[in-house]
Amino acid sequence: MLKIALGQMEVIPGRPSDNFQTMLSIIQEARQHNCHMVIFPEMAIPGYLLGDTWEQPAFLRDCEYYGNKIIEASNHIIIVFGNVAVDWKKCGDDGRVRKYNAVFVAQNGQLQGADNFPYPFRIKTLLPNYREFDDTRHFFSLRKLAMERQEKLEDLLQPVTVQIDGKSCKLGCILCEDGWSDDYSISPIKLLQQNGPLNIIINISSSPYTLNKNNKRNRVFSEQARYAGVPLIYVNNVGLQNNGKTLYTFDGFSTVYNGQGDVVAYCPPFIALTQTITLDLQTKGLELPPITTPNDHDMKSIYTALRYGIEKFTAAIGIRRVVIGISGGIDSAVSAALYADILGPQNVLLVNMPSQFNSETTKGLAAELARNLGCLYTVMPIQETVDYTIKQISETPIINLADSSETKLSVSPFVTENIQARDRSSRILAGIAAAFGGGFTCNANKTETTVGYSTLYGDQSGFLAALSDLWKHQVYALAVYLNEQVFGRAVIPQRSIDIVPSAELSFEQAVDEGKGDPIIYPYHDYLFKSFMEHWHRATPEDILTWYKEGILEERIGCEPQVTKKIFATPADFINDLERWWKLYTGMAVAKRIQAPPVLAVSRRAYGFDHREAQNGPYYTAKYLAMKQELLQ
Amino acid sequence: MLKIALGQMEVIPGRPSDNFQTMLSIIQEARQHNCHMVIFPEMAIPGYLLGDTWEQPAFLRDCEYYGNKIIEASNHIIIVFGNVAVDWKKCGDDGRVRKYNAVFVAQNGQLQGADNFPYPFRIKTLLPNYREFDDTRHFFSLRKLAMERQEKLEDLLQPVTVQIDGKSCKLGCILCEDGWSDDYSISPIKLLQQNGPLNIIINISSSPYTLNKNNKRNRVFSEQARYAGVPLIYVNNVGLQNNGKTLYTFDGFSTVYNGQGDVVAYCPPFIALTQTITLDLQTKGLELPPITTPNDHDMKSIYTALRYGIEKFTAAIGIRRVVIGISGGIDSAVSAALYADILGPQNVLLVNMPSQFNSETTKGLAAELARNLGCLYTVMPIQETVDYTIKQISETPIINLADSSETKLSVSPFVTENIQARDRSSRILAGIAAAFGGGFTCNANKTETTVGYSTLYGDQSGFLAALSDLWKHQVYALAVYLNEQVFGRAVIPQRSIDIVPSAELSFEQAVDEGKGDPIIYPYHDYLFKSFMEHWHRATPEDILTWYKEGILEERIGCEPQVTKKIFATPADFINDLERWWKLYTGMAVAKRIQAPPVLAVSRRAYGFDHREAQNGPYYTAKYLAMKQELLQ
Repeated sequence: MLKIALGQMEVIPGRPSDNFQTMLSIIQEARQHNCHMVIFPEMAIPGYLLGDTWEQPAFLRDCEYYGNKIIEASNHIIIVFGNVAVDWKKCGDDGRVRKYNAVFVAQNGQLQGADNFPYPFRIKTLLPNYREFDDTRHFFSLRKLAMERQEKLEDLLQPVTVQIDGKSCKLGCILCEDGWSDDYSISPIKLLQQNGPLNIIINISSSPYTLNKNNKRNRVFSEQARYAGVPLIYVNNVGLQNNGKTLYTFDGFSTVYNGQGDVVAYCPPFIALTQTITLDLQTKGLELPPITTPNDHDMKSIYTALRYGIEKFTAAIGIRRVVIGISGGIDSAVSAALYADILGPQNVLLVNMPSQFNSETTKGLAAELARNLGCLYTVMPIQETVDYTIKQISETPIINLADSSETKLSVSPFVTENIQARDRSSRILAGIAAAFGGGFTCNANKTETTVGYSTLYGDQSGFLAALSDLWKHQVYALAVYLNEQVFGRAVIPQRSIDIVPSAELSFEQAVDEGKGDPIIYPYHDYLFKSFMEHWHRATPEDILTWYKEGILEERIGCEPQVTKKIFATPADFINDLERWWKLYTGMAVAKRIQAPPVLAVSRRAYGFDHREAQNGPYYTAKYLAMKQELLQ
Repeated sequence: MLKIALGQMEVIPGRPSDNFQTMLSIIQEARQHNCHMVIFPEMAIPGYLLGDTWEQPAFLRDCEYYGNKIIEASNHIIIVFGNVAVDWKKCGDDGRVRKYNAVFVAQNGQLQGADNFPYPFRIKTLLPNYREFDDTRHFFSLRKLAMERQEKLEDLLQPVTVQIDGKSCKLGCILCEDGWSDDYSISPIKLLQQNGPLNIIINISSSPYTLNKNNKRNRVFSEQARYAGVPLIYVNNVGLQNNGKTLYTFDGFSTVYNGQGDVVAYCPPFIALTQTITLDLQTKGLELPPITTPNDHDMKSIYTALRYGIEKFTAAIGIRRVVIGISGGIDSAVSAALYADILGPQNVLLVNMPSQFNSETTKGLAAELARNLGCLYTVMPIQETVDYTIKQISETPIINLADSSETKLSVSPFVTENIQARDRSSRILAGIAAAFGGGFTCNANKTETTVGYSTLYGDQSGFLAALSDLWKHQVYALAVYLNEQVFGRAVIPQRSIDIVPSAELSFEQAVDEGKGDPIIYPYHDYLFKSFMEHWHRATPEDILTWYKEGILEERIGCEPQVTKKIFATPADFINDLERWWKLYTGMAVAKRIQAPPVLAVSRRAYGFDHREAQNGPYYTAKYLAMKQELLQ
């Protein structure tokens, strides 16, 4: 019998000393439970998303230092842990010192596994370089090592043999992406098995949460355990790590599969804990009953990730109190409810900032929301300063010093709209937040963010855009979930859910007359999603092709016949398509460059996983030909 | 004799149709000059820095479409050009369709080189994944292809044979990084030569300008030509491309080396042109006299790159007029002079925005600068709105809706400083810029940007931070260069150069009393550079080690003995070090996430080439031990 502790720890990125302390106490706990082995996640000591901190030799030495202390702590217990491994005598492709993303196996103060491999640790074979992952920038893969040594990769994929109760046990040790090899021409797990039978497969990971990931992971890893016919243990960390622009929650959800591929144990997601499990390696763990794991594609899963992410991020950067501008609309209401839930209503200051364009309806809804949540609340109107600004800009003479002539500027209604938005955020909210001793939030959703339907230094501002990975329809669903499941009462007024979405920056956007945003969410949510989230990004060429073929709604996933209802003619359809494509690839890019951090929940969030350039809109030759044909 | 046209074209990123047209007219020109061959840069059709546009199948098809049209245009001329090559039947490691960064050789409507290679084009072997480069995210390398095919890399590095005047000519075709192989375990150029002698080496590149790159490139490529004993032709594009946050100028500087490694021809940098050269392949081009190339590490080189970059960027995003807030200080003065030089003074509106803290001295200097440049000029004071904002925030009651109690906020002097900065940028400049029909500039330098010595939504804002890759001492040097070399007179008042740098946001920063910034530029410029630009990033551990050993100034490159003059004790030194390290890795990261695009000139600019996470400051175990020792 093999007793294993799964160390589903919270890894603090860039904090080897803290992570070392966490690991020490987990080792202590595992020893008290008489475990044979304790398994920690990938990059347990340094953390995973560190940017170019990997280019600091002092940091690398520090990781080695704490790694060695973990190895020293392995008396009478096997410790499997992830750390950066440095070969100070060799270079990576960038000419800097060579770094491997590695798994170490220590026992009785010694590293195991040097008998059949060039190093006393194992190296990640597959380095992900898509989505938010940047492994190839920093680490040297086992594939490159094999090429350099002119050896076959399979000859380098060797198990680590340890002694357990006097018997040899062959561990197949891999790291994260090595278990997600479907798209690669090689499978590290299969190659490992070419070197004789394994007793157990260990996948240490640092794998961020995304909606629906775990359902897929269970399918993939279960198949691997079944194929190998031995138990597979997946250990993942919890916590929050970030690439600067994008914050990723790590859900843990460490799981044990038996040799038939059944899930026989898992750690609950988003909780740091140590779970022990006892496996009979003789029977491949088949003695344990299969269990089912919770689904991870519903609103509960999104809410859990958002709550966890906001809680961890505010704590990490030292924000205990927030200021939220509330308009009476849905986005700011959901934001207010979330933060009140997380930080407590006494730490949330809600501010309504009406101008002449704000209706009594929405001002009332803002007050109602604040009352329902029991937050701090204030009203600070903006009309006086907006009027002052317009007057100052339009009445101050501009002198042409080439000829001493004078002119004046004029302020258009559109310019006035943005002056209002900036007055609210940059003048009031930023000032209040500083005086209140906290940050102010950005309440933008993903639909707005896609096309830059927001004002730079205005409503786009804030220390975190917690909802900006949710499409508008998801924001509505989250509002309902908060009311029904979290608060158990309608803290977000039903009228805020029902009312037409509007920025209320002009009389053209009067909610009481049913006027509002130019975005038609039941269609544009899905159109924008096809530009941004689809694995093969859609462009106007694809959209127009699908439109022509009558399969657009099916392809982008919105309700059938939606475009027929909205657009009378192909010309209308094309005008709309080009309008948003132009914004998405134009002004919205410029805005996103200066936008706040995004909390990721979807398969693709803005920021680091949406590499973009300020290159403006482009139409392919095929699109232009199709357009011409349709307009004839 | 071989007559070749070097097509040093401006490549517009993401615009296959435009680049195709440019190439067609260059082909036409080359044919008129009876050239045997015309060579275009790497990724001449799609452009190079495109973000995830590579994930749009429609865009890839469009690149193929225009690539095929170029191939069709190769009657009686050999066309060598870069494009993305798609293998629609295979996958990359991300599971998406496989893309190669490729060089195509076309003659008489046919692609050449399929006789000894799996594809009728050649594939980039070394994909850079450091600095601003992201090749491995999108492209499949020849190294991976060799591994997949279980062939030796050298067997796949084959020349392309073409017929010139009835004779066979073997072209060694490589792409950009393939020629910069010093840090790799393999050299594509050397491996190419294992397959028999070449007649000529062609390196097509898309290589951004950075200070001192070309001096190094001439050393490296000259050595390669000498080693191979044949001429080497390097063709690079001009233009501006960007990764969103960071703008890169491409300097062209296409160069021909003869078989002895002498430079025998080059195209002037930053100019789109087609240059023809006639080489005798029998004599390896030795018949041509060696010439010298201009240096690229001086202020002239920086100025040229900045001017080119600003000109191209403003044109690309449609900005013809700019608004610049001028304080009388050096950064805004340099910014004003640069933009006046580029856009013309009639398109530059300078705005002085005094508060009670601005001195008559600096207000006078601002007016003097505007007069010297002959720009548009206005003065819009901020004191009234700043007072209004403070009053509104501190006098409006905050209601606690949990118990209906009321409180008020108080506005500290520090909060007041930031209110002023935001009032200037977000209220006035953003409003004026919109009314003026242009953008407003961010005038931050690299020193400020490093430690976030600026206000978010305040002086950090703007459509472009053109100076933010220049350390403060470089801004001063650029001021002198602009006065002496560009304008030929002191457009930037000497007093703006001599005065103490100050934000003038409080009486603590009164310039007339010699008070100003907390940054001591002669030391901190170099300290910050060691954190940020050094190839092996320095951390407090390194700095303290060097300080202890008395070699700090030498290591970071500042004047000898500077730290002795500034810091009386090790405790003072350590306090200062930790103060800035904490900002650099803390609040400044949060600010940079929302900062405007940076125009790169140095070896490392902020943005895409400085991957960073909001992880806060960290001190290694060794640093903490050393600190304790020094403080005892």
